[in-house]
Amino acid sequence: MDLEKLLNDVKNSNIEIEDALEKLKDLPFEDIGYAHIDHHRSIRNGYPEVIYCKGKSDDHILGIIERMNEKGSNILGTRCEKTTYDKILKLYPNAEYDELSKILRIKNEEIKDQGKGTILIVTGGTSDIPVANEAYYTALFCGNKVERLYDVGVAGIHRLLANRHMIENARVIVAVAGMEGALPSVIGGLVDVPVIAVPTSVGYGANFDGLAPLLAMLNSCASGISVVNIDNGFGAGYLASTINKLK
Amino acid sequence: MDLEKLLNDVKNSNIEIEDALEKLKDLPFEDIGYAHIDHHRSIRNGYPEVIYCKGKSDDHILGIIERMNEKGSNILGTRCEKTTYDKILKLYPNAEYDELSKILRIKNEEIKDQGKGTILIVTGGTSDIPVANEAYYTALFCGNKVERLYDVGVAGIHRLLANRHMIENARVIVAVAGMEGALPSVIGGLVDVPVIAVPTSVGYGANFDGLAPLLAMLNSCASGISVVNIDNGFGAGYLASTINKLK
Amino acid sequence: MDLEKLLNDVKNSNIEIEDALEKLKDLPFEDIGYAHIDHHRSIRNGYPEVIYCKGKSDDHILGIIERMNEKGSNILGTRCEKTTYDKILKLYPNAEYDELSKILRIKNEEIKDQGKGTILIVTGGTSDIPVANEAYYTALFCGNKVERLYDVGVAGIHRLLANRHMIENARVIVAVAGMEGALPSVIGGLVDVPVIAVPTSVGYGANFDGLAPLLAMLNSCASGISVVNIDNGFGAGYLASTINKLK
Amino acid sequence: MDLEKLLNDVKNSNIEIEDALEKLKDLPFEDIGYAHIDHHRSIRNGYPEVIYCKGKSDDHILGIIERMNEKGSNILGTRCEKTTYDKILKLYPNAEYDELSKILRIKNEEIKDQGKGTILIVTGGTSDIPVANEAYYTALFCGNKVERLYDVGVAGIHRLLANRHMIENARVIVAVAGMEGALPSVIGGLVDVPVIAVPTSVGYGANFDGLAPLLAMLNSCASGISVVNIDNGFGAGYLASTINKLK
Amino acid sequence: MDLEKLLNDVKNSNIEIEDALEKLKDLPFEDIGYAHIDHHRSIRNGYPEVIYCKGKSDDHILGIIERMNEKGSNILGTRCEKTTYDKILKLYPNAEYDELSKILRIKNEEIKDQGKGTILIVTGGTSDIPVANEAYYTALFCGNKVERLYDVGVAGIHRLLANRHMIENARVIVAVAGMEGALPSVIGGLVDVPVIAVPTSVGYGANFDGLAPLLAMLNSCASGISVVNIDNGFGAGYLASTINKLK
Amino acid sequence: MDLEKLLNDVKNSNIEIEDALEKLKDLPFEDIGYAHIDHHRSIRNGYPEVIYCKGKSDDHILGIIERMNEKGSNILGTRCEKTTYDKILKLYPNAEYDELSKILRIKNEEIKDQGKGTILIVTGGTSDIPVANEAYYTALFCGNKVERLYDVGVAGIHRLLANRHMIENARVIVAVAGMEGALPSVIGGLVDVPVIAVPTSVGYGANFDGLAPLLAMLNSCASGISVVNIDNGFGAGYLASTINKLK
Amino acid sequence: MDLEKLLNDVKNSNIEIEDALEKLKDLPFEDIGYAHIDHHRSIRNGYPEVIYCKGKSDDHILGIIERMNEKGSNILGTRCEKTTYDKILKLYPNAEYDELSKILRIKNEEIKDQGKGTILIVTGGTSDIPVANEAYYTALFCGNKVERLYDVGVAGIHRLLANRHMIENARVIVAVAGMEGALPSVIGGLVDVPVIAVPTSVGYGANFDGLAPLLAMLNSCASGISVVNIDNGFGAGYLASTINKLK
Amino acid sequence: MDLEKLLNDVKNSNIEIEDALEKLKDLPFEDIGYAHIDHHRSIRNGYPEVIYCKGKSDDHILGIIERMNEKGSNILGTRCEKTTYDKILKLYPNAEYDELSKILRIKNEEIKDQGKGTILIVTGGTSDIPVANEAYYTALFCGNKVERLYDVGVAGIHRLLANRHMIENARVIVAVAGMEGALPSVIGGLVDVPVIAVPTSVGYGANFDGLAPLLAMLNSCASGISVVNIDNGFGAGYLASTINKLK
Repeated sequence: MDLEKLLNDVKNSNIEIEDALEKLKDLPFEDIGYAHIDHHRSIRNGYPEVIYCKGKSDDHILGIIERMNEKGSNILGTRCEKTTYDKILKLYPNAEYDELSKILRIKNEEIKDQGKGTILIVTGGTSDIPVANEAYYTALFCGNKVERLYDVGVAGIHRLLANRHMIENARVIVAVAGMEGALPSVIGGLVDVPVIAVPTSVGYGANFDGLAPLLAMLNSCASGISVVNIDNGFGAGYLASTINKLK
Repeated sequence: MDLEKLLNDVKNSNIEIEDALEKLKDLPFEDIGYAHIDHHRSIRNGYPEVIYCKGKSDDHILGIIERMNEKGSNILGTRCEKTTYDKILKLYPNAEYDELSKILRIKNEEIKDQGKGTILIVTGGTSDIPVANEAYYTALFCGNKVERLYDVGVAGIHRLLANRHMIENARVIVAVAGMEGALPSVIGGLVDVPVIAVPTSVGYGANFDGLAPLLAMLNSCASGISVVNIDNGFGAGYLASTINKLK
Repeated sequence: MDLEKLLNDVKNSNIEIEDALEKLKDLPFEDIGYAHIDHHRSIRNGYPEVIYCKGKSDDHILGIIERMNEKGSNILGTRCEKTTYDKILKLYPNAEYDELSKILRIKNEEIKDQGKGTILIVTGGTSDIPVANEAYYTALFCGNKVERLYDVGVAGIHRLLANRHMIENARVIVAVAGMEGALPSVIGGLVDVPVIAVPTSVGYGANFDGLAPLLAMLNSCASGISVVNIDNGFGAGYLASTINKLK
Repeated sequence: MDLEKLLNDVKNSNIEIEDALEKLKDLPFEDIGYAHIDHHRSIRNGYPEVIYCKGKSDDHILGIIERMNEKGSNILGTRCEKTTYDKILKLYPNAEYDELSKILRIKNEEIKDQGKGTILIVTGGTSDIPVANEAYYTALFCGNKVERLYDVGVAGIHRLLANRHMIENARVIVAVAGMEGALPSVIGGLVDVPVIAVPTSVGYGANFDGLAPLLAMLNSCASGISVVNIDNGFGAGYLASTINKLK
Repeated sequence: MDLEKLLNDVKNSNIEIEDALEKLKDLPFEDIGYAHIDHHRSIRNGYPEVIYCKGKSDDHILGIIERMNEKGSNILGTRCEKTTYDKILKLYPNAEYDELSKILRIKNEEIKDQGKGTILIVTGGTSDIPVANEAYYTALFCGNKVERLYDVGVAGIHRLLANRHMIENARVIVAVAGMEGALPSVIGGLVDVPVIAVPTSVGYGANFDGLAPLLAMLNSCASGISVVNIDNGFGAGYLASTINKLK
Repeated sequence: MDLEKLLNDVKNSNIEIEDALEKLKDLPFEDIGYAHIDHHRSIRNGYPEVIYCKGKSDDHILGIIERMNEKGSNILGTRCEKTTYDKILKLYPNAEYDELSKILRIKNEEIKDQGKGTILIVTGGTSDIPVANEAYYTALFCGNKVERLYDVGVAGIHRLLANRHMIENARVIVAVAGMEGALPSVIGGLVDVPVIAVPTSVGYGANFDGLAPLLAMLNSCASGISVVNIDNGFGAGYLASTINKLK
Repeated sequence: MDLEKLLNDVKNSNIEIEDALEKLKDLPFEDIGYAHIDHHRSIRNGYPEVIYCKGKSDDHILGIIERMNEKGSNILGTRCEKTTYDKILKLYPNAEYDELSKILRIKNEEIKDQGKGTILIVTGGTSDIPVANEAYYTALFCGNKVERLYDVGVAGIHRLLANRHMIENARVIVAVAGMEGALPSVIGGLVDVPVIAVPTSVGYGANFDGLAPLLAMLNSCASGISVVNIDNGFGAGYLASTINKLK
Repeated sequence: MDLEKLLNDVKNSNIEIEDALEKLKDLPFEDIGYAHIDHHRSIRNGYPEVIYCKGKSDDHILGIIERMNEKGSNILGTRCEKTTYDKILKLYPNAEYDELSKILRIKNEEIKDQGKGTILIVTGGTSDIPVANEAYYTALFCGNKVERLYDVGVAGIHRLLANRHMIENARVIVAVAGMEGALPSVIGGLVDVPVIAVPTSVGYGANFDGLAPLLAMLNSCASGISVVNIDNGFGAGYLASTINKLK
């Protein structure tokens, strides 16, 4: 769909407002051959446009960014390789990058703080930081106040309890853990706010690349917990933002 | 901990208010030998007391209900067999029961509506209703406005789209599906509110008792989705309630 | 078996037609030591000869191509590495190659259009294109009219519905999807023609290299759907062609 | 949607034919509370209405049949228990039942033969007959000529080869096998028509309830094969019919 | 081997003490046709004789008990059905039975307390008690001081911390948990003594009959933890006893 | 194929011996509708006819036995239920039955001892006897000398070593074990004859119904070992017989 | 144990022949610190010494070869890298190597033909050759007559049947196949000799690195088949030799 | 928490001894941003500080070592890459490294022998040495007497039995094995001391990276055995030390 043409048609009274609305509701995407870019949410709620970079060629990524950039909206790239970022930086000097989480950010307009409270990102260990940072930057870029509390796993329960105030002040908690994935259960027992559990692939042997913490989190005996895919920091940050923006 | 004694001590100035508060914060549970009943949340936020009945003997269930009932709070029993309910009904004539979901409810005090919006429970098929009803009664009993939209699976996408208004009006959506578990993905693409995905064990063969929809939901390409355990209607209803009560 | 000698024998009346037919029925293959090349289908129905290149040495691949080429029939190579293609190109200047799908084509004779209708290749995302292209070139090379509709996954259902005419015009549909693999279910609900579902290994974490979409597709609640192996674009394209040629 | 009202509106010119068509295209289902009955396909292509009985209460099944019967169309019930059938038979004396496959058939109108050729159902063993019969009755009820060839598994390859003429005469083949699931591969190598492979849960130990033949069939080295869910005779019969009806 | 004959030979000087010792070291078992009863450990270290009753016929169990009883040693039966116990009780009036854990005990001689400290059995929930009791009675019958702390799972961490003194006083801890199996990790972080983790099959869905807690425990980030088979209360109690008896 | 007619044709010179031989080679089976009975091996090498009873109706089993019995050959039924046996016994008074292994034997002609040596069946525990007996009776009925050594598992290695002479005298060894399945490895290290490993489903928890010993046996570090399906005593006994008969 | 010293002791009458025999029976291994080399079988039955090279450092491999070579016996190395072979070749000019199977052979004495018949190695495809060659060289080096029949998979059943004479002439058959692993079932149905099935990791997607053919082979409906580990050509060749040498 | 400040406060009577004790009990960790270093155990029982190096950047590892070193305690690094060690060595010349196990040791104070007996590390094969050495150095560094017995797997049971004295003299045994993982079962049957089983990822095919020996060990029919994660030599060595230090 050509958005421009549609809006011109509206301007020139070639189309009824009602019909235009209907079209906009169903078709807010752009066909560029190898991709149907979906401007759906960024148009509607001021979210950034998002690109999942993994498995896409640099040419495709650059092509998609070009179309998105033309709208002037913010752009968030996940799982973006450093080499890809280097190419992007040359064309978009305002592009920022976090090496640990491989998050790319291109800020074209001011981010409006839309959250109602604080999102807290907690990790069990230091090795979970890449995934946690993906959640952190996603939530931040969607316009939230975000705090971090890292390396407070349950095998040293006093480290977690000593930071109880941070946990109790959050409106939404993202609990990131690999190994046995017990962190969300303990946190879930301490608070009455939603806890989003993110299993990570940190571990070895019978961890089976994150299967162990995934199953543990799905079986949590604490209430108020839900789970996203292994290493899916983006999904957790996005959902946390969605919850935090609820009126 | 003996709550009564503590409160008497407070009354008689045998204990400082501050010390009493501290004790209450850490120890709101009751030791009855075979169980440590946790009055934590019901005291703090008016939630019902919850018993997971499966795997507990009828004597134990009745014993736990007795202690809970003494507090006068509401009681929600999950996975409660019909034969157990029959015994409970004789002692607690106000006990209610839904045979499909095996949910037991004993209402001792008026449920305050605490939710900010509507929770919508959607299912892919008719066979998912037992799990969906577990979510429904849990959310209802926690003080929410809840609506149901059943049998609108993705293989007949027009059934879902024809009810788009219900989906767009909800504040939190619980999407229950077995088979290939695709429902949450489609719903997640239509709304900007949190979607809690519940895989069910409905299916056969390569469904592997719910593994297929569980994996599908964890891999959803839609944003704003998180997942609970297979057949965990209670967990979804409880989390939906937690989100819906956020100020 | 030496086909040439057999046919000469027929010509020279050294063998009865009936006996020759019998031999041809049972033994249309050629033993070259490390392989028994099967000319079965290419002789019978004008299909190209097919080589699955993966796991074969370059010498073996070149040897097999040499024998096939002598027959003058068309040759399709799947999972052919670029370095192997470079060697082939030097010997067979008419060899063509698609880097995304790693499909090799050597066209020695005109491809007869044998299909009764259009085969449509649909993908859920941009990352599924390598597998989709494997199906595309296979179906094309087997003499079909083929169309492509890429990146119309179910999390943005409007992208799919906006292209409903393409879906409704196809005689056979190949639906390629990774992640949660829900695409075939939705398409299967919209049409009355066969849908061949191809799960891809696109995804991460609990995707388990394509297990998630594979299970989802096997459990599809839509009718008229069948599934091929993960990433098996060739198999899907070949089967689509087989169906499309049915008289 | 109320179909009756709509058609009355058409009759009384309260609605334009065009608008009515549009509505019918998108909304051919009926909401009876616990189910959205989909009359989609039976209206469009003369297929029977289908009920997957497993996991539904007898009351629900009877309710759904009642609505379907009112349309006068044929009804096919899968996985219908004998006790359920007994209840149905009292209300619908024309109801027929196959105990092996648990297939229920209510024939309200003559079945038109719509197939272009013969569908052949083959099994590896005698124990696969329940699944094979499900495919058989489904294809039959959808208006096809169907033949059966049972107990010709690959460990006695001469049994299969001795019936080669049946295999070569079919337009679509449904190959049903448990154990190691090798049957479709051998058949696929003998013919140029589509082969639909159905793994069954027949076996024990490392069969893992049909996982072994499922994986074998997905990995078949023969071309032209696709797979449906374990024990999914209905799906195979339905797909075979869909292919056989292609113009 | 006939122990009696051997000892008579020793008495009558038909065999050298040294040779007799050698024989005893290698062959302390008795062949009764369907079983080779191993008196190895009970002779050497005063442990009870142990029968794993599951999968054995009542006749076999009674036959084995008869031989063991003749030695006058204590007998511990695991996974003994109530109906089997009833038969045993008629012949051995001193037989005792715990219905929850299905542990049978026949005490023929006084149990010597051989432990150096206290063994503590902890459970996450009430439903874990059958497995915990198996560990409890095993450790008790092997001559240890044993304490129990039940229903103190990590989702209510205050219940565990309030009983910290019991945990800190134990010499060996057996931590029994189903669901997400996080209990051993938290306990392991609080103490410096060995923690034996026992996953239970308590749970549903993605618990996969105890796989979830098993994997979690194997991946524990706490040190000093090891794991036994799912529901293996006996193994944990026995190992705890072995450790507790170390000089 | 009608064997009788064929042989009559030979007798009456209606067919050449050569043609008859060819027919016999390819078609030694009988089509009775629901089964293609294969007289292949029993005709050729004096083996009994074999029926895998599981999953077949009593009527089918009786029908198949009737046809087999007409040939006067011996009949071996595996996994035959006691109730089925009772029906068989009424018609065939010479039918014998072993309740543990559910093996049915109908001896119509003398069994010729065809083995070159002794087959030894060894088990790890008493609970493995049902599977071991299936191997025992199969090998016995195929005309071998068979010995049994039960309950000599590796956790009491002296029990095995004390019977080393039996192990060293065997020509083929069938090693049956559940639990950790280590028995074949130890035996394989002691002898130079083929060891057929049979994993059993004896165990619980992480045994996963025989998966644990199956994997262990496949990974045996001893040479000269191969594995059959879980609980497949018949297959092991049959293969042992095949090896023992080699000239 | 120091063999030299023992034999000297025998020579010098420092030890009784009987005692020496006893020691030799139990201790035919050599302790070189990082390995206990087992000369057991090579001493007893003229087999080559075997080294599993994978996961051992070059220094360790060279050290082990040195000790073996001193005995003058033949040496077979499996999974030996080319770079390792190059080092070996410099020290042992008679070392031979097959690049496909990575089999190393050092022939220090003439191989005696000990087999009673021919061992046949069959493969389903060309890609299975590396595993098949491992079996081939192992059986050859153990003193057997071995033949090869490659690339005769079941999807072109005529290729197999056309070589039926080779199959019928073998005394032991090793059937090597990846993909769906159906080859052993078809062969097992054609012969009465032992068939050793070797699943290979050839395939992709739902092949799961050889799991698919492994399960298929374990579930074979043909009799007389047993299975070794995925890609374990050595184990199959060794077992085939063990069977072929039986007197 | 700043330990220094706290102790100064104690010294200057700014804090009551009792309050200081309380604080020390709960908070013996140090927050350095990306990690909460836990000095818990090293302060209390003289254990070394431990760093799990895998998945941490060199900068983080160096930063953590710096803090630990300031305390003057010993430091043990597990899974430390050689390149990381090279950097460490430049700063800490007393750093030692074992290339096989990748264990790093920095000895700042004399290790006190605290064990009550000998810990024995046994392996099944030469390839298990890396994991075994991890256990060895861990136990050694924790102040124990440790012995090693390598390459004595069960397929050559005489190698194990010949070293029976070492096994019988140990107070705790760590049994390390890959492949079928049978070693702990045999050892467990020979001794009455705790056996810690360590499955390794040594093997291929159906070993599934250590799953086979893991399951075997969990299902061991020997008593007194418990299991740690695949390849977890550190965990086994640490637990062995914990047991060996018990008073």
